[in-house]
Amino acid sequence: VERKLNFSAGPATLPEPVLRRAQAALWDLDGTGIGILEHSHRGKAFRAVMDRTTQLIRDVAGIGDEFAILYITAGATHHFTMVPLNFLGEAETPGSCDICHTGVWSAKAIVEARRFGTVHLACDGSPAFDAIPPIIRYSASPRYVHYTSNETIYGTQWPAPPPNPPAPLVCDASSDIFSRPLALADHGLIYAGAQKNLGPSGISLVIARNSFLAARRPGLPALADYQSYVTEGSMHNTPNTFGVYVIGEVVAWIRDQGGLAALGERNARKAAVLYDFLDHSKLWRAHARPGSRSDMNITFRGASPALEAQLLARAEQQGMSGLPGHRDVGGIRASLYNAFPEDGVHRLVQLLHEIEREQ
Amino acid sequence: VERKLNFSAGPATLPEPVLRRAQAALWDLDGTGIGILEHSHRGKAFRAVMDRTTQLIRDVAGIGDEFAILYITAGATHHFTMVPLNFLGEAETPGSCDICHTGVWSAKAIVEARRFGTVHLACDGSPAFDAIPPIIRYSASPRYVHYTSNETIYGTQWPAPPPNPPAPLVCDASSDIFSRPLALADHGLIYAGAQKNLGPSGISLVIARNSFLAARRPGLPALADYQSYVTEGSMHNTPNTFGVYVIGEVVAWIRDQGGLAALGERNARKAAVLYDFLDHSKLWRAHARPGSRSDMNITFRGASPALEAQLLARAEQQGMSGLPGHRDVGGIRASLYNAFPEDGVHRLVQLLHEIEREQ
Repeated sequence: VERKLNFSAGPATLPEPVLRRAQAALWDLDGTGIGILEHSHRGKAFRAVMDRTTQLIRDVAGIGDEFAILYITAGATHHFTMVPLNFLGEAETPGSCDICHTGVWSAKAIVEARRFGTVHLACDGSPAFDAIPPIIRYSASPRYVHYTSNETIYGTQWPAPPPNPPAPLVCDASSDIFSRPLALADHGLIYAGAQKNLGPSGISLVIARNSFLAARRPGLPALADYQSYVTEGSMHNTPNTFGVYVIGEVVAWIRDQGGLAALGERNARKAAVLYDFLDHSKLWRAHARPGSRSDMNITFRGASPALEAQLLARAEQQGMSGLPGHRDVGGIRASLYNAFPEDGVHRLVQLLHEIEREQ
Repeated sequence: VERKLNFSAGPATLPEPVLRRAQAALWDLDGTGIGILEHSHRGKAFRAVMDRTTQLIRDVAGIGDEFAILYITAGATHHFTMVPLNFLGEAETPGSCDICHTGVWSAKAIVEARRFGTVHLACDGSPAFDAIPPIIRYSASPRYVHYTSNETIYGTQWPAPPPNPPAPLVCDASSDIFSRPLALADHGLIYAGAQKNLGPSGISLVIARNSFLAARRPGLPALADYQSYVTEGSMHNTPNTFGVYVIGEVVAWIRDQGGLAALGERNARKAAVLYDFLDHSKLWRAHARPGSRSDMNITFRGASPALEAQLLARAEQQGMSGLPGHRDVGGIRASLYNAFPEDGVHRLVQLLHEIEREQ
């Protein structure tokens, strides 16, 4: 079976050398005679995997000891609840936070934060969500400022983090982590579900500034308390061991590709090929505006539903999968994460050219 | 590399045919040209995996439509909190529950339940935890009765569920689920971290009676609310897709082995080989008493620490791994889950005989 060109928004295509190594590790991890799924999480072999993964993450992203690296058995949605639970405090002393509202994911984060405190919208891109709002208005004393670095569904991306925040930034980086150099300044906490640029679903990576964690609410159950993951090395309970392993292999692959700066350039180049076509097309239009466009998820619409259906059908025939837009917004979405091959974008653009010439 | 004989208590040995199929699926799931880690959780291919897994579970364990089958991205420890959060209600109207205290895991469940309501110990096997207490004293009106069907650390197992409970039973079945026919009568909810008899770590299987879920506390965040997993088909957020896949393959293997009754007989036979040796030995003694002994985790002590160290060293030389007892209790622990081969027990007993003859 030939592997398809997988434009899925997540879970998403992974580097093929990583898949090959994972296949071998299922049977035998590093010559131990036991597979990665079967190793005790407290044994030497898995501890080595976790230590190696953490060190690779620190090296590749330039993360110092003022930050902890945590693995949490949950995706980003879990953090929509866990962040305000930890940092907005209890009902008697509700705190407030600022949230930058840029799409579907920030909307979910807002709903959950309102359970625990007051939410101020520092910016609001509704209803079109076709750009990162140019002006941010912070409230007087939020406990943190939350933003979604990349909007998977609408296809927008912050070119840089929100400037001059009055409190630590909290970033949902699920869909663009490690796709370019990591901005750490001003950040208190960064979380990312793994299933786009990092590995399998069912695990999230958290990069947490130790001084920010000190401000959390005390007395939480261990699995809901970010600090317990620091204190117990993400081992209060059995972590998603396979997830940690795959993340380590993906980050080693990132290092071998030249690191985050090299990947950032490659990702910008890949996205530019498609945006350039769209900006010159008579039939297609990119959803996101220049300056706010995502290099990870490129969303666009055709001149008619029939045209979109034609593209999807012909793409499927040519072994291209995962191009329908999110069910809430429709249209076309091409997700071009780190592992998506550069020539794959050219194949899509070639098909778009063909269709355009035929009209 | 030869595969070791893996006595690990969890994550634990998995059936080799399942590992071989998982290796293939990492590259290409069911001829789709996309690997299992890379498929959208909302796509047809993964939906088919989840539906197949659920149907296999229903068929193999004889679970009817009065129960829902749920996949939760978390292990058993998460349910120690989630069960009382759902069923003991809020601080203004605290409920009470009965917990059968049989070891380390019930102790953790007790700590978490006390955050949300009153806990009555229906039985208490402390401090030795070498037997399931013969007499259970329920309180007048608990909301549920919680028990741990198998005690991984002390090596005890309920031969049958607690009898005549005054409220639905809630069972932590992490370490013996699907090792024998599943008792469903009287049960409101059964949860199990997957990493012993079902698959990888980072996912739990929940079997929930619909009428019991109706009694849960309203207004919880979706990921903390068991009912939301029913309503949204375990898809409120991205599930642990690889975990669901492996569980399905393991349950298909269980079916191919003859089902739960056949496995139950095989597991009893495997355990009896080791218990028989221990009961006739002058050097070794089983921790758990007859009638309460686990078929999954056989815990025993040697006449001296030197003897235990000798066994561990010689076992390691012979390719046997994972025999040291839990760090809290020491001694030896042989975990003989479903996938542990019958001849592996004979190899261990042969080594024990050798050592005994040499003394």
